[in-house]
Parts: sequence; structure tokens; C-alpha cells
Amino acid sequence: MIKERLARLREAMKEAGIDCYIIPTSDYHNSEYVSDFFCVRRYFSGFTGSAGTLVVHADKAALFTDGRYFIQAAKQLEGSGITLMKMGEPSVPELTEYVERELPEGCNIGFDGRVITAGDGLDYEKTAAKKGGKVIWNLDLAEGIWEERPKLSFTPVYVLEERYCGESTARKLERVREKMKEEEAEVHILTTLDDIAWLFNLRADDVKSCPVFLSYAAVTRGEAYLFAGESAFGSEVREYLDRNQITLRPYDDFYNFAAGLKNRKEKTGLLICEKRINYRLKKEIGDEVRIIDKANPTTLMKAVKNPAEQENLRKAHLMDAVAVTKFMYWLKKNVGKMPMTEISAARYLEELRAKSPSFIEPSFSTICAYGPNGAIIHYGATEENFSEIHAKGMLMVDSGGHYYEGSTDITRTFILGEITEEMRQHFTLVARAMLRLKSVRFLKGCKGVNLDFAAREVFWEKGMDYKHGTGHGVGYLLNVHEGPNSFRFKPAAGSDENWEFEPGMVTTDEPGIYIEGSHGVRIENELLCCESVKNEFGQFMEFEDLTYVPIDLDGIDASSMDEREKRVLNQYHEFVFEKLFPFFEGEELAWLRNATRRI
Amino acid sequence: MIKERLARLREAMKEAGIDCYIIPTSDYHNSEYVSDFFCVRRYFSGFTGSAGTLVVHADKAALFTDGRYFIQAAKQLEGSGITLMKMGEPSVPELTEYVERELPEGCNIGFDGRVITAGDGLDYEKTAAKKGGKVIWNLDLAEGIWEERPKLSFTPVYVLEERYCGESTARKLERVREKMKEEEAEVHILTTLDDIAWLFNLRADDVKSCPVFLSYAAVTRGEAYLFAGESAFGSEVREYLDRNQITLRPYDDFYNFAAGLKNRKEKTGLLICEKRINYRLKKEIGDEVRIIDKANPTTLMKAVKNPAEQENLRKAHLMDAVAVTKFMYWLKKNVGKMPMTEISAARYLEELRAKSPSFIEPSFSTICAYGPNGAIIHYGATEENFSEIHAKGMLMVDSGGHYYEGSTDITRTFILGEITEEMRQHFTLVARAMLRLKSVRFLKGCKGVNLDFAAREVFWEKGMDYKHGTGHGVGYLLNVHEGPNSFRFKPAAGSDENWEFEPGMVTTDEPGIYIEGSHGVRIENELLCCESVKNEFGQFMEFEDLTYVPIDLDGIDASSMDEREKRVLNQYHEFVFEKLFPFFEGEELAWLRNATRRI
Repeated sequence: MIKERLARLREAMKEAGIDCYIIPTSDYHNSEYVSDFFCVRRYFSGFTGSAGTLVVHADKAALFTDGRYFIQAAKQLEGSGITLMKMGEPSVPELTEYVERELPEGCNIGFDGRVITAGDGLDYEKTAAKKGGKVIWNLDLAEGIWEERPKLSFTPVYVLEERYCGESTARKLERVREKMKEEEAEVHILTTLDDIAWLFNLRADDVKSCPVFLSYAAVTRGEAYLFAGESAFGSEVREYLDRNQITLRPYDDFYNFAAGLKNRKEKTGLLICEKRINYRLKKEIGDEVRIIDKANPTTLMKAVKNPAEQENLRKAHLMDAVAVTKFMYWLKKNVGKMPMTEISAARYLEELRAKSPSFIEPSFSTICAYGPNGAIIHYGATEENFSEIHAKGMLMVDSGGHYYEGSTDITRTFILGEITEEMRQHFTLVARAMLRLKSVRFLKGCKGVNLDFAAREVFWEKGMDYKHGTGHGVGYLLNVHEGPNSFRFKPAAGSDENWEFEPGMVTTDEPGIYIEGSHGVRIENELLCCESVKNEFGQFMEFEDLTYVPIDLDGIDASSMDEREKRVLNQYHEFVFEKLFPFFEGEELAWLRNATRRI
Repeated sequence: MIKERLARLREAMKEAGIDCYIIPTSDYHNSEYVSDFFCVRRYFSGFTGSAGTLVVHADKAALFTDGRYFIQAAKQLEGSGITLMKMGEPSVPELTEYVERELPEGCNIGFDGRVITAGDGLDYEKTAAKKGGKVIWNLDLAEGIWEERPKLSFTPVYVLEERYCGESTARKLERVREKMKEEEAEVHILTTLDDIAWLFNLRADDVKSCPVFLSYAAVTRGEAYLFAGESAFGSEVREYLDRNQITLRPYDDFYNFAAGLKNRKEKTGLLICEKRINYRLKKEIGDEVRIIDKANPTTLMKAVKNPAEQENLRKAHLMDAVAVTKFMYWLKKNVGKMPMTEISAARYLEELRAKSPSFIEPSFSTICAYGPNGAIIHYGATEENFSEIHAKGMLMVDSGGHYYEGSTDITRTFILGEITEEMRQHFTLVARAMLRLKSVRFLKGCKGVNLDFAAREVFWEKGMDYKHGTGHGVGYLLNVHEGPNSFRFKPAAGSDENWEFEPGMVTTDEPGIYIEGSHGVRIENELLCCESVKNEFGQFMEFEDLTYVPIDLDGIDASSMDEREKRVLNQYHEFVFEKLFPFFEGEELAWLRNATRRI
């Protein structure tokens, strides 16, 4: 089947004069998660992982993916004739190297310029030019081949009321325009879906777990344009847009608008974040526009949650904590006594969350990983492939919910019975790292690179590490991974490090340990940045816990913790009990009291 | 006198068509310390501090300097008619703002383009253009006014033997040329004195405490040119240059050489570090040369000390530690029993260092600060202004030596008698911070911004801080402040953060506390970066102590330290005793044993 699809693709390539066609995993908006319409790489390769790039030549094809997917990809590519390129392995070239090496003289590179970032597109341009060819970027070759392709998803758009979002879109637009004035920009274009949803206080359900909607936006000193699926906008939302002087235009109109910028006036100043736009937009804008290449002002604005959002988040996290803690009670009480699988447990947790009237959907696909599965960082049980849960070892559950009061992200690892001494030491180490970071005090001006050490120090001391960031920003009823704030010791490739911790930023704190074939532990709280004392040394900052769920004391070896760590854990559990006890009674309450006891 | 000098300067300005003349504190090489020839700002203002910029108009003059010098500058500017601009105070404009604000329409800004960085010069160019004027940059107006001006200093240049520097200049040139090839550069120009001294394995004494010589250098794929004071080169050194195919040319020839680059061939690739060159060089190079703006390859190369340098440094630090520890013994034995001042104590310490045959000179002006003087971060006692030392309170001594085996930088704070409980707590806190940082283990890839927290954490926890970096790189018989490595939580303005800790880098670890009017504590070790374990998580790194001097246990409150800190201190003192005991005997040895006892 894949071979047939590739044969048809190669015919289309030949017709279009394309010698090397590149299919990444992306949508038009550089989103982390994409809807079915955009799963072109999956269609042509059969590989279903969340990351990978397919490169097709007339006589060969190669799929580039990372370590998480080597096994899965090898299996899914079998018989397709596609070569698996294991990224990061010493003998495997980088994608760009490969494209250059395998491009014959005088040949052309093709891709849909809307799903390739401007930066990558410019690199391919150079590569093609070196070989005396060019890039052909205005064709989506899946059109006409992929017959049952899903439609672009335009789900109903709704207005997020001000009691939830805390700031009117009028005021947000005002702040964006102030920034534009500062940067001497006449126009600002946004293409990232979370920025647009935040700016206009609109939400929808176009992508699973991402309450955004397919759209582009443009803001001028006096006007605002929203390019989106018009069918998704009911009369109420249209009135809202009118009231706010926002003009709704068809989604497809956007590139014409962008191409028209050069005719506005000589050297129009366009504020745009070049590393987040796609190649087609870059081409449409052309060289006659004066580009002011900066992060979207909305990126920092939305990362700093306003007082209403902060207050709402405390409510969302309380609802969430009640659900997760009741899940913990249920799990520890019933494991081994009733049939239980990773799937059924995750479903039960979702049911508990769904009891809150303002629960919308999970904020990402729950990771419910039993035993050795906990060692697979991006594990996802499927209906075909899951484990039963028994009364021994550990269960790691990383999950979250979207509520009107905000989004949550929490990981707890639960002890289900007997564990080895190594597991206990690992559990304790992860808890120590999490507790140490969440209790730091620091001077204003610090970034994630300064504070990551607070968690990692106890790992490094033992010659250990975890191969992921210690934490990421979290959107408010938006993407669960949101920049610019994070805890990392090396900034992520392409991340904007031009920020510092500000009161109102929400960041996760989630160190982990992953022992292949044996077990995994991760413990994650969300932290709200707040002001602490201010004195002659400056403004100090600290973190408030937004997560109110016990850390399983059955995994803790108190003798491996120092006094400060124990104090922080005890204070946290006291705080958790205070928050949760009104929602518990009887046997459950007694259990909660014990689960949050002093050590 | 100052008024007279300014009057003559204003005449010269008028003649040259300059309305605003800017005199910074710098030489032609963007050096931290400068020789007397370059003290033009001091000549025209009377202000002797190490940092400040004088801005002279026809009808007014202003001196910009920072917090360290407000009191001194106010005193020294009295009666000069020069306004003191206290940098950083809310009501005081930035230097560039001031220059723009005070420049009338159609007026010109003047400066000697050799003492202004390219970046600042380009900013002044823009400012002048805005006002319809221009910059006049090719005049040093001190010439012809400052009659007794010292000559440019060209002290005898000598070759640093390979047993000291560990790598031939031929090999260093080869490595630089490899880098040039990588960057596709045909020419590389160096203007920073320590880079040049390192590359050619040459030293001299042109600037006090900086064993460098006034020079510029240019490296092509086949040639190397050294532009320097020819009188400073004896026949042996000339032969050495010949052997290494290095052409010596007059110091003044350099700008002609630079101006000639555009004639070499179309679009010559010039590797140069734009933020470290002066404005005149930038102008001479012009726009026809293809500039590859990167840090000088030598900057990173010299920061990574080679095995011979590392072995030599251990020797230099041992000689240095014997001197400083004998000073500690003498100080604590004799204080209160003989007359002692900050000056005489510092002199005695220098005498002890000078006993080593390979001692050359102090690596910077010793800070010997008694009591409240310890709170002044850049304190320097003078023959006119110093304190006596008594048998109470604390003495902070920050000093170092240049040896053929390398340069040292060490701070110890000594307890001379009774101290308050607050002083003891502060001493202990500083020691804890120093010990915590020096004992970290970390993954390869970390920079100073990642590790600064290890020292500062215990300060921030208490709502305290110190207003300086935690540490800086140290040159090998070169500048005592050397980049790119450092421990800071915010990178210093203009610093290159494109580095990571590598085995062989030497960095100081020197937290401090400064209580105005009362006391100051700083404790400083030098740390050599080394490889630690390598395993599935990666290559771990750690630090080796290069400083072998007891930390005064009379200032330590063991009950305020955690177990790990105590262990690190005890291990350090055991190590210090092992290193030093062969150089001590009798009463001194008994004292050393006690000074390094377990707590």
C-alpha cells in the first residue's frame, strides 16, 4: 500500500520537476500537535510516531526519526522500501546533510512551503542553489493522491469569558500595539495558534488536547484581522469580533494579505517572529518589507498569568488534585484486588476529572506506565499494546486536564506493593530533586538555565541524569507545553532565551529516572512564580505550589534526605492536607491524613 | 589646573570643528588596565579612578563613573567645573543618552577612534547623523596639550619557554589557521594584548601587573605579522620570530596594513572579533572586506590550559600557598604585638612571595582591607590613606602573583581577635558558598550561568547576595581576569557566552559579603576543571583545587554547616596539609596542623 502511494507521489514529483520531496511532521502553524489533515508523512510512510521527516527520491526514500521511535519505526516501515535513518546515531547523517549529499547536480528540492519553517526552507534553497537547482515550494503533492484525506478541521470557536481569562482582548490589543510602537512596526503578523487564541480570547477544539483553532492574524495600528474558517464562527462570536473591531477573513486569504504588505507603503515595518513562521509566508512577504524579527509580544504576555488567571488556576488545580488524589486512594486500595490495566486506570482517572463541571478534556494523552513501561519517557499505552497493573512495583501517571479555569499537568509515581531498595532510592532521589527546585529563592533576573541545577545537583552528585528538561511552561487553557519559560541547563534548540522569571509564570518541576527494562520514576509539580522579599540586594522571587497531591511516602527513604528536604516535604504535605481535606471523609479522609503524615 | 587644561582642550576642539569630545578610560587594545600614556581622562579631569568617561562641551563637562567611585570622584572633581554623573542612579541619564541630548543640531562628536570600541563608535556615528552632524575620530586632542605626557611603553619582550607555556607558537599558529580555514577566512587580525602574547609565547611588562606588550597581529594562511615597538625586541627574540616565520613590523604600521586588506583580493574573508576591536580599525577595514565576526580562536584556546601549564600551575600555586600561609601564621601571631598597617602587611606578603625564584610581580594590586575597609569591594590602601591593623575583627587580603609557572589569585579573610556573632555567621556563609561551588559535579555542556547557583543558593535562601560575579577565568602569566569562562548568573555585558566548561579551564570561586561601615568577607579559591566519571549519562566534570591555603577556622561556626559542607571543608584542609607540610617545621608546623584540623 505504501509502495503504491509512493509510486503515485513519484509520478507527481516527476510532473512537477521535483527530484527530492520532503515531508515533515507539521501543520501550517509550526504546532507541536497537528490534526489529521496534516498527517501526510504518516500517509506516505505508514509510520505513526509524533516526529519524523520523510525524504522521497525517484529511486529511494528515507525516514528520519529520533531515539524514541527506532523500534516502532523499524516495524512500521517493514516492506515499504523506506530506509530508517536513526537520528543521532554516529553513522547517520543529519537530515540537511543527507538532502545535500543525495541531490544530483541540477536537481530540484520540493516541499509544501506551509509546513516547512522559514529557516529550514532557506537552508534547502541554499542546498538546491549549490547543486544548480531550485526549491519548488508551492505544491502539496498529497492533494490528488490522498483521496480519503480528512478535511481541515474548523470546530466551533467560542469566547473565553473575561472572568476566566482576566483581560479583555481590547486591552491585549492595546498592549500589543504599544509593543509595535516601541519596535517601530506598522504591522504585526501572528501565525502560532496559541498566540492567536490568547490574544483574541477565543478557543475551539481543532487539535486534540489543544483548544485552539486554525488561523492567522494581523494587527495594525488601527485594525485587527483574523484569518480563520468562517464556518466555525457563530453569530455571537461574530458580534464579539465586531465589538472589538476585529475583521474576520477567510483562512485562505491570509497569504494574499501577506503578499500585499509590500504595497502598503514604502518599507512597512513588520513585526514577526521569523523562527516560528513558515517558508511560504517568508516568500510572500518578500524583501521590500522592513522585517523586525522579534518574539511575538503575546508569547511573553501569555506566559505571565494575570491575577484572575492565577486565582482560577488555583481552583483548577484544586479540582484536579481532588481527582488525582482520589485516583491514588482507589489505586492503592484496589490494586491486586480487581483487574486493572494501564488503559482502564487512565480511563478511571479521566472519569474522576470529568466530575468537575468545568472540565473540558485531558490536556494531553495520559501517560499511564506500569513497571518497565515507566522507563519509556513518551510511553503511550494503546488498545493493542498495554500492560496489566499488579500489586507490586510502581505505576507512573503523567496526566492533566483543561478546565475553563486553566490547564494542569501533574506526574505522580505510585508504589503498588513490594519495590526493590534501588527503586526506593530512585524514588527518593527524584522526590529530593523536585522538592529542592520548588523551594528555591532567587533574585529577579534568573532564568531557567540558572535554576535547573537546583534539581539536577543531587543527580549529578551520583553520576546520574535525566535526558529531558526539568520543566516547561504551561498555557492557560492552551498548549500544555508553552514557552518561553522552562527549567533546562542547556536552552532547547531554537528557544528564545530572552526572558527571565516573572511573577505569574507557571512552570513544571519534573525530574525523573528511567531504568530500561525495570522501572521509571517521575514526580511533577507545577510552580507559580511569585515575589518574595525585596531588600537592598534586590527583588527576590520564589515559587508557589499549584499542585496539591501527596507524594507517595511508601517510596520515600527518609534517611536518604537531608533536614531541609524533609522540612520541605513535610510542609508540602501539610499544605496538601489543608487544601484537600474538605473533599474527603471517612476512610478516605483517614487515608489522606496518613498519606500526608510528617516523616 | 584642570580648568586650564579644559580651556586648552576646548580651543583644540573648536579648531577641529568638534562640539562634544569624548574621553573614555582605555588604550588602543580594549585592555582592562592601561599604561600611563593612556591616562588622558585622568589628565583632563583630575579623577584617578579606574573607570569613567569624560564628556566635554564648549560650555560644560561631565564625568560618568560608577558606584565604586562616587565619593572619590566628587572629591577629586571639586572646583574643576566638571559635573559628576553617578551612573545607575535613577535621575542620571546613560552616557549615550546624554551625548545625544546635549548635542545641538548640526554639531559634531569627536574622539580618538583608537580608544573607543567599534560598537560605541558606530552608536556615536548614528547619534551625530540624527543631529545632522558627523563624528571626527582621527584626532587625539591630548597631543599638543599634555606636554609632560609619558611615552608609549615598550618594555623588553622575552620568549616564554616551552617548558612553561607547553605549546610552541608554530603549533598554536597551526591551530589558529585550522580555525581560519573552517571559517573560510584568509586573514585574522588580533588586537587584544593577551591573545597576542599567548599566540606568540612572548611576554613583557608594558602595563603594571599585565605581562603583555603593546602590539597588533595579523595571521594569514601563510604569514604572520606582529606590529609592535621594534626597540623592545632584542636579537634573541628577533631570531625566535624569524625561526617561526613571524614578521616584525612597526607598531604604527598596523592601520596601513588593515587599510590595505581591501586591495588583497575581492572580498577577502577577515576573521575578527568586532566587539573587541576599536572604531578606527573598523573604519580602516571598510566595507569591501568580508568580515567574519567571531571570538578570536585564541581566546578559547588560551582559556584551556594545556597539560604542561596545568602541571606548572600546581607548582605556582604551591609556591604561592606557602607564601600566603606563612603570611597567615605571621599575621595571626604578631597582630597586636607589633605595629602593622594595610600597607606594611601587603608589603610583607609580597616579600614572602618574592622568595620564590620564579616570582615575577604581583598579578594585580593587592587588596589588603582591615575592618570596615573590607566592605569596599575594590578597596586599595594608598600611602596617604590606609588603616592600622589591630588584634580584633577581620582582615581581607585579595592578592596574587605572576610566576613563570603561571598566575595566581587568592582571597582569604583572617580573624585577628574578637569578632561579633554576625561576623562569624557571615564568614561561615561565605565559606559554605565557596565550598559548595568548588565541590560540584556536573555534566559536560554546563556554563558558568548553570553553576553560579551552587554558590549563591545559600545566600539567596537568607535573602542576601553579593553584587559581583562568583568567579572569573585566570590567564597563564597573563591577565588575571580572562574570559570566556566565569561563574555568573547573568552574563556580563558584552561577554561571549558561546563556551562551556572544558578540562583545563581555570576559574576563581569567590563569594563575598560586604557590610558597609562594618566588615567584609571574601574567600577565593582557583578551580581547575577536570573530567570526572563518564557513563551512559555522559561525561561528568568536576573541579580540582589549585589553591592550597587554610580557611581560617577561627571564623567558622560548624553548627551552621551541613554534613556535606563540613566533609568538603575537612577534605580540603587535609589536602592543604599534605601539600604544605614539607615547607613548615617546628612551631609553624604545629600551627599548620591546628589550622587544618577537622571540625
